[in-house]
Formats: sequence, structure tokens, C-alpha cells
Amino acid sequence: MTSPEDREGAQGLLLIGSTGSIGESTIDVVRRHPERFRLVGLSAHTRWQRLVEQALEFRPAFVHVGEACLGECREALAGSGIEVLSGRQALVDLPLRDGVDTLVSAIVGTRGLEPMVRAIRAGRRIAFANKEPLVTAGGPIMEEVRRHGVSCLPIDSEHSAILQCLRGEKPEDLSRIFLTASGGPFRGWSRDRLQQVSREQALKHPTWSMGAKITTDSATLMNKALEVIEAYWLYDLGEEAIEVLVHPESIIHSMVEFRDRSVKAQLGLPDMRIPIQYALSYPDHLPLQMEPVDWLKLGSLHFEALDEDVFPAIRLARAALRQGGGAPCVLNAANEAAVESFLEGALPFHRISETVERALEAFAGHSGESLEELIALDREVRQRAGSGDWPAIRATRDAKPRQSGNL
Amino acid sequence: MTSPEDREGAQGLLLIGSTGSIGESTIDVVRRHPERFRLVGLSAHTRWQRLVEQALEFRPAFVHVGEACLGECREALAGSGIEVLSGRQALVDLPLRDGVDTLVSAIVGTRGLEPMVRAIRAGRRIAFANKEPLVTAGGPIMEEVRRHGVSCLPIDSEHSAILQCLRGEKPEDLSRIFLTASGGPFRGWSRDRLQQVSREQALKHPTWSMGAKITTDSATLMNKALEVIEAYWLYDLGEEAIEVLVHPESIIHSMVEFRDRSVKAQLGLPDMRIPIQYALSYPDHLPLQMEPVDWLKLGSLHFEALDEDVFPAIRLARAALRQGGGAPCVLNAANEAAVESFLEGALPFHRISETVERALEAFAGHSGESLEELIALDREVRQRAGSGDWPAIRATRDAKPRQSGNL
Repeated sequence: MTSPEDREGAQGLLLIGSTGSIGESTIDVVRRHPERFRLVGLSAHTRWQRLVEQALEFRPAFVHVGEACLGECREALAGSGIEVLSGRQALVDLPLRDGVDTLVSAIVGTRGLEPMVRAIRAGRRIAFANKEPLVTAGGPIMEEVRRHGVSCLPIDSEHSAILQCLRGEKPEDLSRIFLTASGGPFRGWSRDRLQQVSREQALKHPTWSMGAKITTDSATLMNKALEVIEAYWLYDLGEEAIEVLVHPESIIHSMVEFRDRSVKAQLGLPDMRIPIQYALSYPDHLPLQMEPVDWLKLGSLHFEALDEDVFPAIRLARAALRQGGGAPCVLNAANEAAVESFLEGALPFHRISETVERALEAFAGHSGESLEELIALDREVRQRAGSGDWPAIRATRDAKPRQSGNL
Repeated sequence: MTSPEDREGAQGLLLIGSTGSIGESTIDVVRRHPERFRLVGLSAHTRWQRLVEQALEFRPAFVHVGEACLGECREALAGSGIEVLSGRQALVDLPLRDGVDTLVSAIVGTRGLEPMVRAIRAGRRIAFANKEPLVTAGGPIMEEVRRHGVSCLPIDSEHSAILQCLRGEKPEDLSRIFLTASGGPFRGWSRDRLQQVSREQALKHPTWSMGAKITTDSATLMNKALEVIEAYWLYDLGEEAIEVLVHPESIIHSMVEFRDRSVKAQLGLPDMRIPIQYALSYPDHLPLQMEPVDWLKLGSLHFEALDEDVFPAIRLARAALRQGGGAPCVLNAANEAAVESFLEGALPFHRISETVERALEAFAGHSGESLEELIALDREVRQRAGSGDWPAIRATRDAKPRQSGNL
């Protein structure tokens, strides 16, 4: 623990999603730099024992936990002086608490949207790994970011790479960005072969160690599709200026091309502590004791085209961006619902993209400009997905999955 | 031709070495941006016909030409209103002329040292491809750069890459730089095989099209050794923080590693117009109509270790930097003399590095702090090299080359 004097100059962090993969890496970064960062609040949904351990190590002012674990958590932290909170409204209000300089959003899905907006409106700095809010409501969020003059810094390795490459550069000099993609565990597979994918196979990512939702999204390439939409909002680019390039080694995290055809890339080992720390220390690079890339051992870096016939996700993202309005929100909500079904064993892997495509058709032309409209749309899409309104969801109830449509 | 009004805001360039490889690429850049750049003066040594063509196209205020071609050049430009100059002192004084904002130094060897220093002292911006002055007298030159507050921007693709990667970054965040090297035409060759190298073989570079001196330096890896010394002065790094990495495709032009192990690289096709234009437009990227890198066609990028037993140049550069004083000057002068002998057919290829090593031994401990001392030392080294004072030079007079020493 740092003394109160040391804490004076340290950046106060509210870390929501503290027990997940990004949360734990954030904890590790904070542990290495007590003079720079202090945890003011922590939040976790179900893993309350780990949350308690973190709380006892870092002594935040408060923790927030899922309602099912509130009793155990309160008991475990009794007498610690750490306030234990629960409930949706309390979560959304956490960024308003004293001492919070930065919201680190490491939770999964659109659940992160309202805390993020609340933090922006309160003038807090945002470091976010949680890409779904920006996909759901990029327009209104970026409008709030501009209005309140806050920094909104991505943790995603690809967007961190772009942020690093754009440092010191003028927006008008930018020509294109290249989001790199490992290609996921099914790189090189055929559409037919994808019909046999098991949950276990989808959850084995070749280069990154991450949570179940994002690992599934990486396997369908929907993660990259969400990143295309994220880049669209963060870097104010047309979708045609955002390229996706398969790079199996995950060493080049993304690239930026300028209008003189000069290209800058950010590279590094696939370790989330680098982009997490960069989002917290931006624009500085603090020391981080870890192995450097061994270029000779690595030997080579490869590039491949994405097979859009097998992985339609990027095409769907581009269509959603061109359609505008609520389409990216629909894409994201349908994907979240479909991935949830897949992880529960209720939807075959290859039906995830189909579900998203059907949802985009079903909700075509929905306007969805304001935050409130988009939140309502997000809810509506999930309800209809849950009710099995679409062919793709219905198909999961067939004993034998039938051939999917024109994917 | 641009109108006088357009010229008002354009950067006035003095281009010395206008008919060489870098000179012609600079001409091409200027031609594409008449609103940004205008040629105030041109200089060439022997290719006077081409110089005249350039002068008639761009109408500079003056040209400077080698004394042997003065008559022809004057005749060809009679009545053009373009002043024709010649002689060493006139060359050195060119940067003082009216309208010169920037010296573009595209000549070869230490001949560029005095014009460069004169330009710095006159407060002119420097864009230099000519690395030998900085290798010869990096200490005094950088001292002049600081004193006069001028920009001194490298054109070398590797140093341009580093400049681009460092844009917006703090010096204290830097950990190491990686200078990439194509490995030259003899990558993978043994020491024995290098004894058979012909002039023609040495002048065939695998990825870059350049002049004879720098192409020979690329074949011996002495070019990379000079670049290590150049980086030492430009980026204020210890030699141990400057790594050399063989990268045969010459697409990654160099990389910078920060203290969080994040790495930035600058990439692009091996076309000198990119770094030339960047040095002239720094820190902006102006449009440059050329093919982008085709990542899919490229497919992969490779890294290899440099074989320092076969190519001792980098080791010699590091030794010269550690020795300090006049040692880098000796290294450069001995190399220039040896390459000249090689290009004249008087010295076998594998004796070039040996000559440099013997020169470093012969002049060990020479102080050489001031510009004047270093210029005198440079001259002395060349005279002794020319007189065949060292074993390596003498060896070329044997009918059969004997086995070289511990190289």
C-alpha cells in the first residue's frame, strides 16, 4: 500500500470488470506503478472471492459486486472500511464518486454503456477495453466526448496501436488504417468445416488469452468487425479507409498509412499490459518489465487476406456502417445474444454470423440516433433474439442443423 | 514553372548533388509540389548536361558545377539568366545565398561537410542524405545545430523511419532502436566466398537503387555501420541501444522500442522519394502519388541476425564510438579511400573492411574534438591510405591476395 502522500499525485482509477482478463492485467499494471495509479473502486459481477482479494490488497474506497454475491462479499470485507455496493443503478453511478479520475471499463458487452456515458458526462477520463458501447452508440458517445472534452482512450491492442501511430500526426495526413487480425482458431477453414465447431475449439485462441465472449468473437471474426466500427468512431474515418489484414503472429497490432504512402505500425508481444498501461499513461510510455520481442526467434511476420465468404463479419460491419442509424447497434446486440446462445450450447458456431445478418435485415432502416433510442433498440433486438424470432435462432431447435443461407 | 506569387510561400531549396540518385528523386518531389518547394540553386560535379536540363526546367538563381565542365555549362546556360559558379569555395558558400531556406545535401562523402556546417551556421534548415559529415564530425556538427537552433533532418530511409516513429514521443521513453539492413547482395555468403567478389557483383543491390559509393558500402555493411554512428549523434543514444537487424525485404525501414516494450516501425516501399519528401515537409506528410505497399502480394517480412564474422563493419563502428574522439572520422575516411580503390579496381572487395580496421589501429587514440582537427584528420587518413601505408592496401599489390587477419 502506498502512503496517503504518494497517493496525492496518483491517478484515481475505477476499474469495472476487475476479475476478468483485462481487469487482472490492469491490476498488474497498477501494482507496478503505485506512484502513478491508485484503485479507488473495483467492480466484479460473480467472482466475489477474487474481488475481495483484490480489495484487501489495494484498499479501494468501495467495491461493487453482483447482487447474488452481496452477502458473502460484505461479510468478507466487514471491518475493512471498504464500502460494498450492488445493483445496476449503483454501478452506473460509480464514476461520480470522489477520487475517480479515470474509468477503466473492462466489462463485457453493452452493460458498459451507461457507466461509460455517466463517466464522460462527469468529465472523467475513459480507458476502455469494452468495445460494445462504442459500437452500439458511437455517434452519441463521441458527441458527449467532444462536448465534455474528455480523453477516451482505447485499450484494445489494435486501437492502441493506431493511437500510438497517430501520435504527433495530423488527421488530414492519414490515408488508411490496417487493423490486423490473427484470423482466430479457424483461419483457413472452409464453411463446411465451420459447421462442426465445438465450444472448446472456439475458445482456444491461437495468440491471445481472453474471456469467452471476445474469444468467440475472435473465432467468428466478429471481434474484428466490432473493431472496424470502433475505429470508424474513434478515428473519424470512412469504412472504406479501414482495411482488415490477417496477420497470424499478432505481433503487428495495427498499421496506419499516410498520404505519402509511409506506413507506421505498432508492434509488441500479445500482452494486454502494454495497451492497458499506455491508455493509463498516455501519451507517455512508462517502464514495463517484460520480455521484449525477440525478432530473430520470431524470424518472420505474415500477411494473408481474410476469407470473407467463410467469415462474413467484416462485410456485415461495413454494411451496418453504410446503413448507419441503428444498424451497428443491431449488429452488436444480435451478436451478443447469439454468442450467449452459442456459449450455452443452444446455437451452433456457424449460426452466429447468420443471426447477425438476419437481425440486420429484420431491423433495416431503424433510425436510432439518440442514446435513449439506441439503448431501447439494443433491448428490443435482444428480446427478439431471445424469443427465437429469426431463422438462425429457430434453426438451432432443429435436431440437425440445416445448410445456412447466402453467408 | 510557378509564378512569382506562388513562389513566395515555397521553401527555397539548395540541392547539392542534383544529378545523383538522391538528387534526381529530390527533383521529382519538387516537381510534384511547386507550391511548396522551389529550387534556388543546384550543384553537380561532372554530369553537367543533366544539370543544364534541370536548370532549364526549374530556373534556379544559380548552378554550381565541377571546374572541368564550367565552360560547357556556361555556354549551355548563356542568356538564361542563371548564374554558373564553380570551385570549392563557391560550393561551400552556396548556402549563404539569398532565398536558400534549406540545404538538401545529396552529395557523397565528406565533401559535404563544409557546405553543411556553413548552412547550419547561417541558420538554414538541413535535409541530408550525405551521412559522412555526421560520421566524421558528429560532435561539432550537433553542437552547431544546437547553437543555431536549426532543424537537421535525415533523408536516409532508416533515420527517417526513426524520426517518424519518434514523432510526438519523449526521449526518455525510448529504450532501443533497431536499424534494419537488407543484408546487401552478399547476405549469407562466407568469408572465403567474399574474396571472389567483382565490382559488378558489389554494385547490384537487391532492394535499393543507389550510387556506387553507397551501394558498395551496403555490400560491405559499412553503410549500416555509418548509420549506427549517424543514429548515435542524431538520436543521442549509446551505441548499445542501437541494434542492427537484417531484414531482406527492406519494407520495415527501422523500428523504435519504448521502455514499455511497445515498438513502432515505419514501413514503405524502398523508394527514396518518401523519406526525401518527409525531410522537406516535416512534420507533415504531403500527398505522394505512388503505389502503396501490397501487403498480400508481399506476404511476409523476415528478420535475420547479421553475421559479424563475415561483415565486421558494425563491430568496427561500435569500437570507433566507444573509442570516441577521432575514431569515427578515421573509420569513415579509411572507408572512403578504400571504396575508391575498390571502384578503381585497385583493392579487392574483402580488403575494404580490413583497411578500415587497420586505419583504426594506426590512428588509435587520436583526439580530434574540433571541426578543424577532424577535417585535418580526415585528410591525413586519406593521404596515408593513398600512399599505401597499411597492410591492406599493400596486399592489393601482391599478385595473389593473401589470407586476411582476424576479421
